[in-house]
Amino acid sequence: MKKDHPVSVPLRQVTVTDSFWGGYMELARTSIIPYQWEALNDRIPDAEPSHCIHNFRVAAGEEEGSFEGCVFQDSDLAKWLEGAAYSLSTHPDEKLEKEVDSVIELIEKAQQPDGYLDTYYILNGLDQRWSNIRDHHEMYCAGHMLEAAVAYYQATGKDRLLQVMIRVVEHIASVFGPEEGKKKAYPGHEELELALVRLYGITHDPAHLALAKFFIDERGQYPLYFEEEAKRLGPSYWDNGPLKWMYYQAGKPVREQKDAEGHAVRAMYLYSGMASVARESGDETLADACRTLWESVTRRRMYITGAVGSSEYGEAFTYDYDLPNDTVYGETCAAIGLAMFARRMLELEPKGEYADVMEKALYNGVISGLSLSGDRFFYVNPLEVVPEACEKDYLRRHVKPKRQKWFGCACCPPNLARVTASIGWYLYTQREDTLFVNLYAASECHVALGGVPVTVTMKGNYPWGGEISLCVSCETAAQGTIALRIPGWCRNWKLTRSGKPAEFTMQNGYAYLSGTWNDGDTLELSLDMPVERMEANPLVREDMGKQAVMRGPLVYCLEEIDNGACLHEILLPKEAKFTTHREDALLGGVVVIESDGLRLQDNGNSLYRFASEKQWKPVSLHWVPYYAWNNRGVGEMTVWVRSE
Amino acid sequence: MKKDHPVSVPLRQVTVTDSFWGGYMELARTSIIPYQWEALNDRIPDAEPSHCIHNFRVAAGEEEGSFEGCVFQDSDLAKWLEGAAYSLSTHPDEKLEKEVDSVIELIEKAQQPDGYLDTYYILNGLDQRWSNIRDHHEMYCAGHMLEAAVAYYQATGKDRLLQVMIRVVEHIASVFGPEEGKKKAYPGHEELELALVRLYGITHDPAHLALAKFFIDERGQYPLYFEEEAKRLGPSYWDNGPLKWMYYQAGKPVREQKDAEGHAVRAMYLYSGMASVARESGDETLADACRTLWESVTRRRMYITGAVGSSEYGEAFTYDYDLPNDTVYGETCAAIGLAMFARRMLELEPKGEYADVMEKALYNGVISGLSLSGDRFFYVNPLEVVPEACEKDYLRRHVKPKRQKWFGCACCPPNLARVTASIGWYLYTQREDTLFVNLYAASECHVALGGVPVTVTMKGNYPWGGEISLCVSCETAAQGTIALRIPGWCRNWKLTRSGKPAEFTMQNGYAYLSGTWNDGDTLELSLDMPVERMEANPLVREDMGKQAVMRGPLVYCLEEIDNGACLHEILLPKEAKFTTHREDALLGGVVVIESDGLRLQDNGNSLYRFASEKQWKPVSLHWVPYYAWNNRGVGEMTVWVRSE
Repeated sequence: MKKDHPVSVPLRQVTVTDSFWGGYMELARTSIIPYQWEALNDRIPDAEPSHCIHNFRVAAGEEEGSFEGCVFQDSDLAKWLEGAAYSLSTHPDEKLEKEVDSVIELIEKAQQPDGYLDTYYILNGLDQRWSNIRDHHEMYCAGHMLEAAVAYYQATGKDRLLQVMIRVVEHIASVFGPEEGKKKAYPGHEELELALVRLYGITHDPAHLALAKFFIDERGQYPLYFEEEAKRLGPSYWDNGPLKWMYYQAGKPVREQKDAEGHAVRAMYLYSGMASVARESGDETLADACRTLWESVTRRRMYITGAVGSSEYGEAFTYDYDLPNDTVYGETCAAIGLAMFARRMLELEPKGEYADVMEKALYNGVISGLSLSGDRFFYVNPLEVVPEACEKDYLRRHVKPKRQKWFGCACCPPNLARVTASIGWYLYTQREDTLFVNLYAASECHVALGGVPVTVTMKGNYPWGGEISLCVSCETAAQGTIALRIPGWCRNWKLTRSGKPAEFTMQNGYAYLSGTWNDGDTLELSLDMPVERMEANPLVREDMGKQAVMRGPLVYCLEEIDNGACLHEILLPKEAKFTTHREDALLGGVVVIESDGLRLQDNGNSLYRFASEKQWKPVSLHWVPYYAWNNRGVGEMTVWVRSE
Repeated sequence: MKKDHPVSVPLRQVTVTDSFWGGYMELARTSIIPYQWEALNDRIPDAEPSHCIHNFRVAAGEEEGSFEGCVFQDSDLAKWLEGAAYSLSTHPDEKLEKEVDSVIELIEKAQQPDGYLDTYYILNGLDQRWSNIRDHHEMYCAGHMLEAAVAYYQATGKDRLLQVMIRVVEHIASVFGPEEGKKKAYPGHEELELALVRLYGITHDPAHLALAKFFIDERGQYPLYFEEEAKRLGPSYWDNGPLKWMYYQAGKPVREQKDAEGHAVRAMYLYSGMASVARESGDETLADACRTLWESVTRRRMYITGAVGSSEYGEAFTYDYDLPNDTVYGETCAAIGLAMFARRMLELEPKGEYADVMEKALYNGVISGLSLSGDRFFYVNPLEVVPEACEKDYLRRHVKPKRQKWFGCACCPPNLARVTASIGWYLYTQREDTLFVNLYAASECHVALGGVPVTVTMKGNYPWGGEISLCVSCETAAQGTIALRIPGWCRNWKLTRSGKPAEFTMQNGYAYLSGTWNDGDTLELSLDMPVERMEANPLVREDMGKQAVMRGPLVYCLEEIDNGACLHEILLPKEAKFTTHREDALLGGVVVIESDGLRLQDNGNSLYRFASEKQWKPVSLHWVPYYAWNNRGVGEMTVWVRSE
């Protein structure tokens, strides 16, 4: 690793005590992970079966049967294992660890003598493996299982799965690579690249980093591997539409890709891998490519909730400022991928905008995918829903008006498990003796500053309030810098150090406080958190004449249950007054916003008529956090509201 | 026919001299019909081939080859023949008549000994005919050819094609019907029903009306024919979505259908057939069903342009007030079908609203499908176009930003030929001694009032001006009533009779003037035709906060070429002043509207920002008639404009 890059403070050095994220971690432990274990074992009534454990059992010779489910079904188990590993790293649990160990034993049994491991081809014929790199997800599954192996090793010190996966990697390296006779291919669905860099973080084996770099450098090089493969497989499904090879981010070399294109989850995982490789290899051209793509995503192709991928067609990016709220895709996995990409950009260089977007995604477009009960899931995260349209408009058939028990293609639920269980990983980065605080969440962080072990204890009621305190504990005085991110959503803030106005320097969205830290030193950051009316760039046609309401990092929305149907007939008046209050009994405890509003009065029946002065009735609008929508039954919802 | 229904004054009794519609008739004669003859013969360079004449040649044994094109390809020739017949009825043309006669000879040669006539099965195996009523369009093609036969007989008195088609009808009646052993089926794509009533209008053979009534009464009766057929054919493509059997308007008996559902062209043709059968049979329950469906279409499911069918999926209706302007389908054929349905409702009962909708469709959503040059066509008629979105947004891939030369499925171009060539048919209806003037277009109409031959000469500059005069010529005084439609778009109007304030009674949107008509009597109708700002019912979400501009029957639009790009950033101010002026050199000669407008000034780059007061720059807006859009290159267009 190049010395001048920050690195995330590892999960096991961060104890999250936060009421908000702590709640999600607890939900992961007590609900999401156990529920999904049942799902992976096909034991959820009236839900689409997973077949995941079944496939491994058959592959391991423990059961008769054939492969069932999607070609990438193995990855659901991998992501669940990763989530379970994170949970175990912060909350030991004998029963869960036993389940995990038994699954790992199963996985080991399914592995082939040459290291190959993918139940689809183990059960359908190994002679066909690696014959459809474009669509058959073998490296994607390997990537996820590798992440799980790294996570479980870091959580428990047990390396059985890690050894399995190192053998898988060695097998893959024997098939793919720059050397004569090896395939010059790269994953059809990216994921292995970033996983290999995580493995390299443990092994420091240059071959592991080199393989990741090979995949990234080779991608999009002509003659295009996928084009050659297509001569055998036939054209890609995407050939007939506007995406073509860019569905796979494979139409040109990654350093020539200026816009975020194609399947959004693939893109996020690729960019995360690119940022990881850039950091570890010091490749500035690759880092620049990441910066370019970051800007494309976050400045022109991202929803205000951090959702990305605006089109159901290809679950993909479309073009600049094309951000429809109702036909949106906004896959939960893509928002998770954006948070992962952001964290890796923070590991390239400490810029507040990366953390701003990471925060935006995590608090909004990621956890909107999860019910408050932890056992219902959105794949698609709309910003505007009319249930009748979801039912009757074929263009919105992908938009479900309520969270589902499970999916035939169930990538999102276990992704939510692993992200909620590892939230501590997103809070802090460190570069030499500087500790960056990227997200605010009550926690304890154990690091060394100037060689002295230090515990930073963060307290506060974020995201509901902006008062944050950090207290330093150390046995001897420590030399170093604490850099606090000043969120982009905050207009006014104050910072004191042990009760006195703090001395700091601002750089790229961080307030840097340096010097000597003594035991008991405190920082108090006070972020003003008023209700803010937001607007989109006017090039976003769908948001024209509308505003969204935010408070702190949270995007709010109107739901039918609070505000009646026909939310499009509501107008937010220019001089609307906003008030906030805490409702402990509502939606797991939230700050609710009330505001003035106007509702159109119209008793006309005619479809078209001479325009006339509109009558508006004053109403009180009731706003709730977007992430918590659809936890009280099916109804309309909107984030963007017409405004004067 | 029951005596108390009006009947359309036949085409050959109406001479259109109108500059507007006369221009279209001339365009049909000199451009549309000759161009399409070339297209049907596959002689248009760089256009999708029709194969239509080719298929008939092969079926007639004049050429070697196989069937090419869509299963309903025969209907393109039929519609072209019908259009040519209308043109010949108002403008004799030896060369065209010879072409038509030679094609009729070809058709006759292709007909099978038992009367069967459909080149798809003649060339692919007659043993399979009538085996897929649901999807294979044999009766649809027969219906169109039957309409052509009737039209050509009425135009020229030649009955060769009529005799061919009577044999086809006899064959069909031997296969389908209520009698033991016959199939209890009905057309998968409706059309034959209305054609059979047209045939009955010539033959007065009760069997022809009875067959039409059978098809209508049998439709949707359980056990459902299509469901039984599906046991052999497999499920319908539409089974997987929200349409199912209602794609074919076949999910329930027609008298139980309360909403316009399914494929819009099918629906329009069915409803037209229902209205025709109701009129001829005096079936009031069927007439009521027509009224119910009329209200569903025109009061809840129609665009302001008369376009219908809001979804590309199934080219279909969706649900009440779901009228997106950008992802719309609005097939040209469906708007034509709506005009046909409206004319048949006028033949059931004289109500101004039927003529209002007929006029709306003809002046807007029908002829928008045709370039001013007569040789380029829209299949889909959007009310809002952003060319970049058409190219890059898969949801709008069906929306073409420019008219096309031809289509693989080319139903719309010949439909435009037949409607523009027969416009005189839409102007007048007569019920006993009452002549109804439904549309205003300079013309001469020859009828008998009280037994006295009368010529009514209509003059005016409609739709550009609202001054209309009607002059009666007769050798002896005639007793009768002239009923003038007062358009729904008109708020103020004056009516004089030979220079004096006219005595009239108003009923259902018509001003009835009765008494004695002497040679030289005149009526002067003066319809105020200011620019009107229109709004949609607020339940139309997509039009909320927007207005459309109309003048007389014409819907106007903004085009990029006149108003710049980013039309969504334009605001129509509350107090906007409108002026109009004639531009002879523009778009074939139109009245242009100029108005005040405001354009958003925004130099911000950020995707999301704190809402702030908007800066608006006064601009002059340039409105052109919607039907004439996209005749000056590719660019943005919108009908609905944001308004204060």
